[in-house]
Amino acid sequence: MKKIKMGMIGGGIGAFIGDAHRRASRICNDFELVGGVFDVDYEKSKLFAKNEEIAPERCYKSVDELIKTESAMPAGEKMEVIAIVTPNALHFPFAKSLLNAGFHLVCEKPMTMTVEEAEELELLVAKKNLTFSLTHTYTGYPMIRQMRDIIAKGVLGTIQRIDAQYYQGWINSIIHGTESRITGIWRLDPEHAGASSCMGDIGVHAFNLIEYTTGLEIKEVLSDLSSVKEDIKLDLDGTVLLRFSKYLKGVIRASQVCGGEENCITLSVYGSKASLKWGQENPNYLYLLSDSEPTKIYKPAHGYNDQLAEAGHTMPAGHPEGIYEALANIYKGTAKSIRGEKFTPGEFPTVHDGVRGMKFIHSVVKSNKEGNVWVKV
Amino acid sequence: MKKIKMGMIGGGIGAFIGDAHRRASRICNDFELVGGVFDVDYEKSKLFAKNEEIAPERCYKSVDELIKTESAMPAGEKMEVIAIVTPNALHFPFAKSLLNAGFHLVCEKPMTMTVEEAEELELLVAKKNLTFSLTHTYTGYPMIRQMRDIIAKGVLGTIQRIDAQYYQGWINSIIHGTESRITGIWRLDPEHAGASSCMGDIGVHAFNLIEYTTGLEIKEVLSDLSSVKEDIKLDLDGTVLLRFSKYLKGVIRASQVCGGEENCITLSVYGSKASLKWGQENPNYLYLLSDSEPTKIYKPAHGYNDQLAEAGHTMPAGHPEGIYEALANIYKGTAKSIRGEKFTPGEFPTVHDGVRGMKFIHSVVKSNKEGNVWVKV
Amino acid sequence: MKKIKMGMIGGGIGAFIGDAHRRASRICNDFELVGGVFDVDYEKSKLFAKNEEIAPERCYKSVDELIKTESAMPAGEKMEVIAIVTPNALHFPFAKSLLNAGFHLVCEKPMTMTVEEAEELELLVAKKNLTFSLTHTYTGYPMIRQMRDIIAKGVLGTIQRIDAQYYQGWINSIIHGTESRITGIWRLDPEHAGASSCMGDIGVHAFNLIEYTTGLEIKEVLSDLSSVKEDIKLDLDGTVLLRFSKYLKGVIRASQVCGGEENCITLSVYGSKASLKWGQENPNYLYLLSDSEPTKIYKPAHGYNDQLAEAGHTMPAGHPEGIYEALANIYKGTAKSIRGEKFTPGEFPTVHDGVRGMKFIHSVVKSNKEGNVWVKV
Amino acid sequence: MKKIKMGMIGGGIGAFIGDAHRRASRICNDFELVGGVFDVDYEKSKLFAKNEEIAPERCYKSVDELIKTESAMPAGEKMEVIAIVTPNALHFPFAKSLLNAGFHLVCEKPMTMTVEEAEELELLVAKKNLTFSLTHTYTGYPMIRQMRDIIAKGVLGTIQRIDAQYYQGWINSIIHGTESRITGIWRLDPEHAGASSCMGDIGVHAFNLIEYTTGLEIKEVLSDLSSVKEDIKLDLDGTVLLRFSKYLKGVIRASQVCGGEENCITLSVYGSKASLKWGQENPNYLYLLSDSEPTKIYKPAHGYNDQLAEAGHTMPAGHPEGIYEALANIYKGTAKSIRGEKFTPGEFPTVHDGVRGMKFIHSVVKSNKEGNVWVKV
Repeated sequence: MKKIKMGMIGGGIGAFIGDAHRRASRICNDFELVGGVFDVDYEKSKLFAKNEEIAPERCYKSVDELIKTESAMPAGEKMEVIAIVTPNALHFPFAKSLLNAGFHLVCEKPMTMTVEEAEELELLVAKKNLTFSLTHTYTGYPMIRQMRDIIAKGVLGTIQRIDAQYYQGWINSIIHGTESRITGIWRLDPEHAGASSCMGDIGVHAFNLIEYTTGLEIKEVLSDLSSVKEDIKLDLDGTVLLRFSKYLKGVIRASQVCGGEENCITLSVYGSKASLKWGQENPNYLYLLSDSEPTKIYKPAHGYNDQLAEAGHTMPAGHPEGIYEALANIYKGTAKSIRGEKFTPGEFPTVHDGVRGMKFIHSVVKSNKEGNVWVKV
Repeated sequence: MKKIKMGMIGGGIGAFIGDAHRRASRICNDFELVGGVFDVDYEKSKLFAKNEEIAPERCYKSVDELIKTESAMPAGEKMEVIAIVTPNALHFPFAKSLLNAGFHLVCEKPMTMTVEEAEELELLVAKKNLTFSLTHTYTGYPMIRQMRDIIAKGVLGTIQRIDAQYYQGWINSIIHGTESRITGIWRLDPEHAGASSCMGDIGVHAFNLIEYTTGLEIKEVLSDLSSVKEDIKLDLDGTVLLRFSKYLKGVIRASQVCGGEENCITLSVYGSKASLKWGQENPNYLYLLSDSEPTKIYKPAHGYNDQLAEAGHTMPAGHPEGIYEALANIYKGTAKSIRGEKFTPGEFPTVHDGVRGMKFIHSVVKSNKEGNVWVKV
Repeated sequence: MKKIKMGMIGGGIGAFIGDAHRRASRICNDFELVGGVFDVDYEKSKLFAKNEEIAPERCYKSVDELIKTESAMPAGEKMEVIAIVTPNALHFPFAKSLLNAGFHLVCEKPMTMTVEEAEELELLVAKKNLTFSLTHTYTGYPMIRQMRDIIAKGVLGTIQRIDAQYYQGWINSIIHGTESRITGIWRLDPEHAGASSCMGDIGVHAFNLIEYTTGLEIKEVLSDLSSVKEDIKLDLDGTVLLRFSKYLKGVIRASQVCGGEENCITLSVYGSKASLKWGQENPNYLYLLSDSEPTKIYKPAHGYNDQLAEAGHTMPAGHPEGIYEALANIYKGTAKSIRGEKFTPGEFPTVHDGVRGMKFIHSVVKSNKEGNVWVKV
Repeated sequence: MKKIKMGMIGGGIGAFIGDAHRRASRICNDFELVGGVFDVDYEKSKLFAKNEEIAPERCYKSVDELIKTESAMPAGEKMEVIAIVTPNALHFPFAKSLLNAGFHLVCEKPMTMTVEEAEELELLVAKKNLTFSLTHTYTGYPMIRQMRDIIAKGVLGTIQRIDAQYYQGWINSIIHGTESRITGIWRLDPEHAGASSCMGDIGVHAFNLIEYTTGLEIKEVLSDLSSVKEDIKLDLDGTVLLRFSKYLKGVIRASQVCGGEENCITLSVYGSKASLKWGQENPNYLYLLSDSEPTKIYKPAHGYNDQLAEAGHTMPAGHPEGIYEALANIYKGTAKSIRGEKFTPGEFPTVHDGVRGMKFIHSVVKSNKEGNVWVKV
């Protein structure tokens, strides 16, 4: 099948997340990176393009130039989709321009800096009828998709409690002075990172996984955040109480100062009949617990899985696939949408997930600022 | 060494927790059960005594009778210590009478129904200079003691976050009608169980483990509890935000409706230099995490452990010991105290831990009732 | 119920295995230790008796004296059962004398030094109609009993492969000179330990677990053993190929020089329809694997277990029990047999298991000595 | 950097392993698939080429045609490397022709059908001075590379025992008639699969991992293989005793009939000072055990790892990478070699590993056929 021509904004030399997107797009094999604006420094951008064997004339000085030139190219040759992998503050302006110019988008999270921007993008995507894929990567894991399917089928009975955790420890080395990573600096600066560090960067993933797997909406939050040290301006740690309905409550726990934790996301959904537990660091294991039967371990590449879960793992059982394949699964769904093929809801997170995420972040920050009170999401 | 003569209040035929105490006391081998009031029904009590080859004349009709008769017996023959394993509401009156009569006590938790009662007992224990051992059993695990030692030595640096969980699922079968256990009934009745089900029965263990291992005091709590169903009067589920100091926060999560969870206690203490993680269902594994070194797994029966941790496991490494041995370790410490031998603080939980626990339970209930506000512990 | 009067041969001060037997007998609560010959040194034996509050007149100088004196005592007072926990070479002579004198026995493994001795005991037990309980402790674990039950019910289909491992590392510190334990010395001396160290001490447990759980007999073995160092006279490491029938093969791997391994026993039984895996260091988890369904984890204290498995765990689910409780389960079965109560085959290993074990050890040693050839068990 | 032009023999529509190679080559990003002979059926081959947007003129009818046409193309345009992913029996003739024509090769294992063929290829590679990369994929895992490094540094002391396992269960569904996969058929046919099924397909991976990580050579083997059912001509299960030297022994256990096992490779290397354990299904965990210190868990993306291990994982710690990334690491090393860049021994398995593998397979088959006797590798 003909590959979809893709451009990229950001993601030049040394950019970790841009490289992840390119790998994922190559794994999925539906995309061809043909150009972009890879760095604010044009010389660096050109060097990157050369390394990647990208035609120099499609390495643009600016997003505006890219839009202008690419828009003038004939269908089949021009870029169809653009991946935005810049620092957070640039997501919105670039996304807006590119949508207005008719490009499909793949966008890193958090989608925008404010809820208003997010809602503006949602309207724009609807109006323009374009594909907008937000890379909440963890939803690409087969066992997360299986979890969603099991819950949708009602296996858990009435859901009674939801608990999600996202613990990392990498900011310790920055705030305690043993290391100073560039990446650390912009993430701790409200101007570039937005209203929140911990909740904006990782708590929102936990939020997204809850809504993705359960199909439920979190209605209200009460948060207690911590900056851990006097001179830090953003939250690096926090707990968020969740309310879904009168008798369904839950909690999100997130931290960037849990020394030694790597990327420890866990998700547990407890029901009256059965429960599900999953952890990101061993993503190919999904545990179904019940009071009366032995715990069951679901794994990829088995006939008992839902079709979408099954399609997301291409190796035979027992050959572990990981985070790149999860992101590739999202790219795969995005490709189907762009091509107008049939796809399953949940094959890629949408602009609506981005709106939800921004609402979550801002509700959480507000709750904390106002003294740990309940705030509607 | 001469065994300590022990009496027991409660714990007759069919009583699970009384049996556990007797097994533990036999493992530790410092006690001899010589009599008691095993059941409110005297006939049943006598039957129990007969089964256990206990002298019929020391199977008493009431606690008062026990006190009167035993007190009159010569030293070396009379009971020195009494284990109270009755339903919660009876702990206080019996403990008070027995302390006043000069008996050492082993008491099940929760220690009392109110904070005032707890404080009264604390004063009484001090005044009478008696041993009061509260069976927060989990503190008897060798790796919990090792955790306490590692933290005391400052290995973690500044503690930055504390997270404890206690999830069970057994109440599901009662509230959803598939089963009806006797034990379930009194636990859901405020008159017998006290102000709280979930927090009073299990949340308080999580609280105790935090204070035990870290040596820190929780200053304030904010809770959100749930009764899960309309007709239930007590909390069966909840989350408690914790504040230790301005920059040290934490969370306790507890639930009795996490279907399929058995007795899933986890405790994580995160520091600026390193962190510790432990789980009750595999109690012989303690994980020390750091950002710069491989994760280390501490296990019992190794020379690298602290002396108290080491003494709490008698088999060679790799021969798993469990919950009965943990309780036996607490009995062992209690015996040392009764005999006036040297013991390490932490060898058994004291009446002060009981006061702390009652304060925790009542603060949590108050916070929830008043609309999820901060309450001093 | 009236406790069974028990004597003990060996197991005095500092003896690890004797202490384990006493703890287990106290947990099970059907026995009362009333006397014995606790040490070859009579003074030490008396000191031990005093510490344990055992009547001094029942601390005997020799097994002969014990037999003579106890035999003369009235029923209800005299010892009914004797636990033999001496070094290996003494098991047989003491067992023979005691059986001839009409005592029931609990005996440590390996039961004897030779196959002939083992067979002599088997005949004697049958002739005397006494209870002989061989403490292959691991068969007391509830999940091993559950494994036996699942296999007996045919859940696995045709068994196609059996793999058992028993790896320890503790001899390293002795043979490489960093430590020198008393216990190490007799175990490396053929006169006291018998024909084999590794296979006789631990390999035989793996053998026993295979025959216990599957109900199959191993027909032939081919072994390759290693003494690891020039100056060691016994095997410290080895692999044994197993043949059950033409198309059912298996393997036992055992070693005492696997540095860092504690007591790593694993047992896997693979069938045409399903398979079972178990590991001793986390004994409360039994894994049922199949090609078409999620892996199932069986745990104790659930209604889905077989009755014998269920009875072997007294705490609620999720409260881990361990090796002492496993041994207590064997003592419990032994008590039932002594009392003439109904018991399930498999509640305790018998003299026949001891004969099988001795045959295994001697076949394995022979196969190795003759150049790794097949030898009938 | 300019991509290396790659051709492929085999791997057309529906071919699992060809797809894996293409994904891996795209992840590594040093290769561009420009043509090949994708299927014996030329029409299917052309369809595949079309789907992949490969120039139709470079979809060849035969390997001979490919050689002829590509050899005539100018440097920079012609294929430099060919990936051979055909059924086993075709590896040798194609490899020989392609090496003679001067192409670098990536070849699936087993490399050939006989030892002689393997040795012929080894000579040819040396003579032609070409890169020959054998895809023993598991050597591409970062923690396998870390294992090799730790052993090379002498951390384990004297190695005392080596134990490797490779258990799968997928053939059950074929031999017991519940399923019939095409892939199953050729694998059970000696003409296409070679002298062995289980040992040739998977046992050889275990062999390779042992020699790769330890740097040791297995000198002799004694095997006991099983075809499991009467009508099967090849081994589906077996155990192989290993001898490295007088006091260093080991074992390889492999089976394709372990129902429910997915791809359960484990590797344990036990030394006098410390030991290492690794399992393929959770490939990012490497356990270092010692008698005197807590077990250490090595994971990717940490500064404590060796450079090669570290380079093989591109995501931050805790973001699991899997089997595709392992294969991509081998492709990366292959690319360095083709480009004449500096690379570390072990970055990709070579033709010599292929010779060793064939010797292993044939020794094992011979040992079994001759009655389970020792055979030199």
